[in-house]
Amino acid sequence: MSDRANLKAAADLIRQAGSVALACHVGPDGDALGSMLAFGLAARDAGKEVAASFGSPYSVPGNLGFLPTELLVPPEDFPAEPELMVVFDAGSAERLAELGSNASKAEKLIVVDHHATNEGFGDVSLIDPSAAATGELVHDLLVELGWEATPEIAQCLLTALVTDTGRFQYASTSPRTLRLAADLVAAGANPSQVSRHVYEQAPFGYLKAAGAALSRAHLERDKGVVSTTITEADLTEAGIGWGDIDNLIDIIRLAAEADVAVLAKLHEDGRVKVSLRSRGDTDVGALAAGMGGGGHRLAAGFTSEEPPEKVLAEVHRRIEGYR
Amino acid sequence: MSDRANLKAAADLIRQAGSVALACHVGPDGDALGSMLAFGLAARDAGKEVAASFGSPYSVPGNLGFLPTELLVPPEDFPAEPELMVVFDAGSAERLAELGSNASKAEKLIVVDHHATNEGFGDVSLIDPSAAATGELVHDLLVELGWEATPEIAQCLLTALVTDTGRFQYASTSPRTLRLAADLVAAGANPSQVSRHVYEQAPFGYLKAAGAALSRAHLERDKGVVSTTITEADLTEAGIGWGDIDNLIDIIRLAAEADVAVLAKLHEDGRVKVSLRSRGDTDVGALAAGMGGGGHRLAAGFTSEEPPEKVLAEVHRRIEGYR
Repeated sequence: MSDRANLKAAADLIRQAGSVALACHVGPDGDALGSMLAFGLAARDAGKEVAASFGSPYSVPGNLGFLPTELLVPPEDFPAEPELMVVFDAGSAERLAELGSNASKAEKLIVVDHHATNEGFGDVSLIDPSAAATGELVHDLLVELGWEATPEIAQCLLTALVTDTGRFQYASTSPRTLRLAADLVAAGANPSQVSRHVYEQAPFGYLKAAGAALSRAHLERDKGVVSTTITEADLTEAGIGWGDIDNLIDIIRLAAEADVAVLAKLHEDGRVKVSLRSRGDTDVGALAAGMGGGGHRLAAGFTSEEPPEKVLAEVHRRIEGYR
Repeated sequence: MSDRANLKAAADLIRQAGSVALACHVGPDGDALGSMLAFGLAARDAGKEVAASFGSPYSVPGNLGFLPTELLVPPEDFPAEPELMVVFDAGSAERLAELGSNASKAEKLIVVDHHATNEGFGDVSLIDPSAAATGELVHDLLVELGWEATPEIAQCLLTALVTDTGRFQYASTSPRTLRLAADLVAAGANPSQVSRHVYEQAPFGYLKAAGAALSRAHLERDKGVVSTTITEADLTEAGIGWGDIDNLIDIIRLAAEADVAVLAKLHEDGRVKVSLRSRGDTDVGALAAGMGGGGHRLAAGFTSEEPPEKVLAEVHRRIEGYR
């Protein structure tokens, strides 16, 4: 089916359903959660019964807690055999964790996503890799349904756009993305509120833990690699958890002398989780895949149970092979 | 004159001129430089003789060096008595430093600005405080003149918008701002290039110096104040200068427990330069004014020659008076 026909088919399925069960990928980000909640609020306004969830661990990231989460239910309370299930921003059924089973038992399944790897696992799939965020496709669907974007819905969709474009700065940011953002702000979305919650706050302990990690940062100038470590002890001392340091790699990768930034997170159980970022000359996705992990060219990661020095030495040794 | 009439009057003056001399405020930011260079490139394309500059110190900030700077001349080479001078993003003639004298001798003067405090010191003044950036007004002027935005011009204007809205996140970001950004990207501007240069790089030494400052960060939870110091010795050890740590306060102010963030920069000559940021409950502009400095409600600063402990204690003592 053409994109146009898919959009119409999805809208028809939705119009016919009395209830909709919505899911997004595990460990939801702003695009996953914002897209799902925007659609959920609009469906509720249109008189549908709505349940929305995501697979375990079931916990809304702290910086997204400002989104309207009243439609969320824990995965165990999610309809076992939904009349109509709509899945957002998940490239495959595996990304739904335990809710993949609900998807396989749904009478009808719609998949809305912008990942190029998505093969379309629904009865109807709205997939457009040229979209900067799944939120763009949700907006198309709302327009097709004739459902209005209230200020609350607009705020969810703006969150989707802002987070998946890193504040309209990734190469995926298109005129279409920015025009939609303009329409959402005109509809009542508040860009400064989104940024304040998503980008402009962290627990005080983050400053201390980041300070420890940055003080240990090391530059190998001839290889163009900046790397550092953060330990579970750093976090414990600072009174924070692993979920609080997601943005630390963004400070490490500021180093202009480096093409690759490496952050090794040393867990107390012996695991070493390595985050990799590239400015473009190095394919860290391929590097991470070679270490048993994954990601894409500019952002990737892997987990190892080897000693941290050995893991970091191996990363350094391999980097030149991916340029 | 109405805004419309002003725009027409400015365009008429520009069309009649054979040469234009362009200036922006001292210590130019992305909006000042981007607006001026965008207009300069368009004027050159239209066959005008163009010179552009700003008052001393005459140095393009490193993170704006990617802009097309071929039209820039040092202030001493700026036309002494310009036929037509156009001033961008400067709220008053004082903000032009020594080029204020050239402005007073210009045959005709046009002022393009979005600062609410601008009283309009030109023969024609295009002032609109509702614009998120002076770049929005430059775009209006180019449209009025029928001058096309080449990709290079679009990139300058996008830089103006991105920097003056902090990546489309300040409250000033309007549908108009985002629609213009969409048009500029459609015209060939590259949002990821702007962000990469402006926000995503720092010398490696910045990581080490930031690490030292963050490790010393201190939270007074009951007062809602986070503060730290950075010394000239930190910078020397890291091989960087004061100009490299402009964004450090943005990490300090992440602390969610604090309404006020304080960064004391301890210079070797004994001066203590204090940067203040507020999330909104505290008027740090008034606080800084009381200490002999200035700024606005959310961002301000002052310089003292008292011992650093005394300066910080005084700031802490005064904060509650500005809530």
